[in-house]
Amino acid sequence: MLTVRKSASLNLGEGVNNKMKKLINAIDDVVKEQLEGMAAAHPDVLTVHYEPNFVVRADAPVQGKVALVSGGGSGHEPMHGGFVGMGMLDGACPGEVFTSPTPDQMYECAKAVDGGAGVLFLVKNYTGDVLNFETAAELAFADGIKVQSILIDDDVAVKDSLYTAGRRGVGTTVLAEKIVGAAAEAGYSLEQCADLCRKVNQYGRSMGMAITSCIVPAAGKPTFDLGDDEIEIGIGIHGEPGQKRAKMMTADEITEALALEIIDDGPYSRTVREWDNASGEWVEKDLVDEPFQSGDEVIAFVNSMGGTPVAELYAVYRKLVEICEGKGIKIVRNLIGPYITSLEMQGCSITLLKADEEILKFWDAPVNTPGLRWGA
Amino acid sequence: MLTVRKSASLNLGEGVNNKMKKLINAIDDVVKEQLEGMAAAHPDVLTVHYEPNFVVRADAPVQGKVALVSGGGSGHEPMHGGFVGMGMLDGACPGEVFTSPTPDQMYECAKAVDGGAGVLFLVKNYTGDVLNFETAAELAFADGIKVQSILIDDDVAVKDSLYTAGRRGVGTTVLAEKIVGAAAEAGYSLEQCADLCRKVNQYGRSMGMAITSCIVPAAGKPTFDLGDDEIEIGIGIHGEPGQKRAKMMTADEITEALALEIIDDGPYSRTVREWDNASGEWVEKDLVDEPFQSGDEVIAFVNSMGGTPVAELYAVYRKLVEICEGKGIKIVRNLIGPYITSLEMQGCSITLLKADEEILKFWDAPVNTPGLRWGA
Repeated sequence: MLTVRKSASLNLGEGVNNKMKKLINAIDDVVKEQLEGMAAAHPDVLTVHYEPNFVVRADAPVQGKVALVSGGGSGHEPMHGGFVGMGMLDGACPGEVFTSPTPDQMYECAKAVDGGAGVLFLVKNYTGDVLNFETAAELAFADGIKVQSILIDDDVAVKDSLYTAGRRGVGTTVLAEKIVGAAAEAGYSLEQCADLCRKVNQYGRSMGMAITSCIVPAAGKPTFDLGDDEIEIGIGIHGEPGQKRAKMMTADEITEALALEIIDDGPYSRTVREWDNASGEWVEKDLVDEPFQSGDEVIAFVNSMGGTPVAELYAVYRKLVEICEGKGIKIVRNLIGPYITSLEMQGCSITLLKADEEILKFWDAPVNTPGLRWGA
Repeated sequence: MLTVRKSASLNLGEGVNNKMKKLINAIDDVVKEQLEGMAAAHPDVLTVHYEPNFVVRADAPVQGKVALVSGGGSGHEPMHGGFVGMGMLDGACPGEVFTSPTPDQMYECAKAVDGGAGVLFLVKNYTGDVLNFETAAELAFADGIKVQSILIDDDVAVKDSLYTAGRRGVGTTVLAEKIVGAAAEAGYSLEQCADLCRKVNQYGRSMGMAITSCIVPAAGKPTFDLGDDEIEIGIGIHGEPGQKRAKMMTADEITEALALEIIDDGPYSRTVREWDNASGEWVEKDLVDEPFQSGDEVIAFVNSMGGTPVAELYAVYRKLVEICEGKGIKIVRNLIGPYITSLEMQGCSITLLKADEEILKFWDAPVNTPGLRWGA
């Protein structure tokens, strides 16, 4: 489990941190002040609670609706707090930067959003997140709240990683929050939401790359070193090592490196734990994700790691269309921009999600959050 | 007038440019390929024309509706091409990176979007843009198209600048495109659109700052040098020098430095040229922008220069609310994110726009563009 990194309250301009140039004040206040800004900016959409920190829909709890809760370390904004609102998340639990939130955040958040139809935890596969959401699920269940917990593990770059057993949870998380959020809004039951979320995870695959590192405020120096002419292929969203270091490549070569790993990825088998409300126990499930096939329709998500501007993402998207066409895969929807970021890291990730009628219907449904908004 | 910078078609990984790490292919293709990606991603919203390059609404020309056209150098995305669509721009003319588009781009774009009710050019105050849009207006008028041209000059940082006589046009441009776009959609005449656009410009003031420089692809090296512990207060969106270099400051200090210049700015007088369709001549107009006052309601726009992640903007917004409250100014709407950028530059800008009933009505109206979308 990742624990909260504590550091002295340093002001910028003093000592070692005077070379860390960010729009922040004291390091210990970074997450709190960002949440305060979000609360001030979007009072019609969301409400922020402090100590423990969590973000809920302004109209929470919505009676009779399944509530979606996600969370994870801060530094990936707008995910997750920026996806709280009508048609997406009911609650989000932000940890310190790149640090898992605690079970009490998740538990208090679940209590605040449960409208009687149960709470679905949407959990990115990082060991700290997984363990803490498991504890929170048990606490909520003990309180009489029906819970379900679905893991997102979509990163094809590496099998295991720093902080992760199995594949990491990355870009598919954003798509799952949108799609399952719309389903919950439309009246899906907790079981139906869990089934849909599991399907979205199994249909989605991602891979990312970094052009530059990023600086965690409490660390004050780059998470990893990257040469002036180097990039990291298969990077994690916390700067975890990827598949390889490479010399700088063109946008087309980078797009190909990411897209082919995703499209040509074979069947992926693993065992996950899900909560069973009938027995009040964790049960194991064997899951196999099938590879993409010619004839598939997909939602394509080209994501900025934070510091890469949207114009460059369009160059990637252009090549991605060509690669997918060559594989007989048709992109029927897209999302292009900074949605699951790593602070100011430059680079991008690609997510492809096989889309059926159910998924497209909920993708197209209205959403009103600070980070993603249409039809509302 | 800024002319198009030509450079040899360099591939990354060769010679001097192997340290410029961007998601691009050959340097001469940067703008074209980004436009191709945008066209592929948003065919329901917009259409891209090449040689000359311009972007128009997918349903252009909209008969009987005033058409809004803007443009400028590329590198500021999503502005302007990403703001083409229902409720905002009818057309956008992208120049090479940080380089004015040419009169033929603007003229061809105007012809493509005119639906018989005339074309309003929304022009940021840079000498090249101003001269080229003037030529384009004359060409369009000679073709029987009613034209009007409104200048945006809202940057309080400096009086004159590189490429600019008078104040530069920055963040208010985004707000004007949204507000006047909605008015055109609602059936405003060309004169009414021009009057509203002039008012929005007079009601808006902006100022920006940079934490890092950016690299123009054709230059291959940073536009300006900034020390490891330095920032530039009052930066222009092309890296033009601002008011001063300063040592790194906290988010609160930076917010104060920008916001107080905006709020305490005195009356601003200058003479602008506008086209007169009756006489077929340019006429001069004396304009005075009045300062903000206690009791004003405003739209607050906190913008990322491209490389600064949205979470940091919320820390700025938090302090901005406090400063405005202290001055008796009430923020009634906000926009927070990367909307008028300078490639991958890190930093932010603040725009405050005095908001009356007419402005708020059109701000709230539906918009459907790649860069800004709600209610649709």
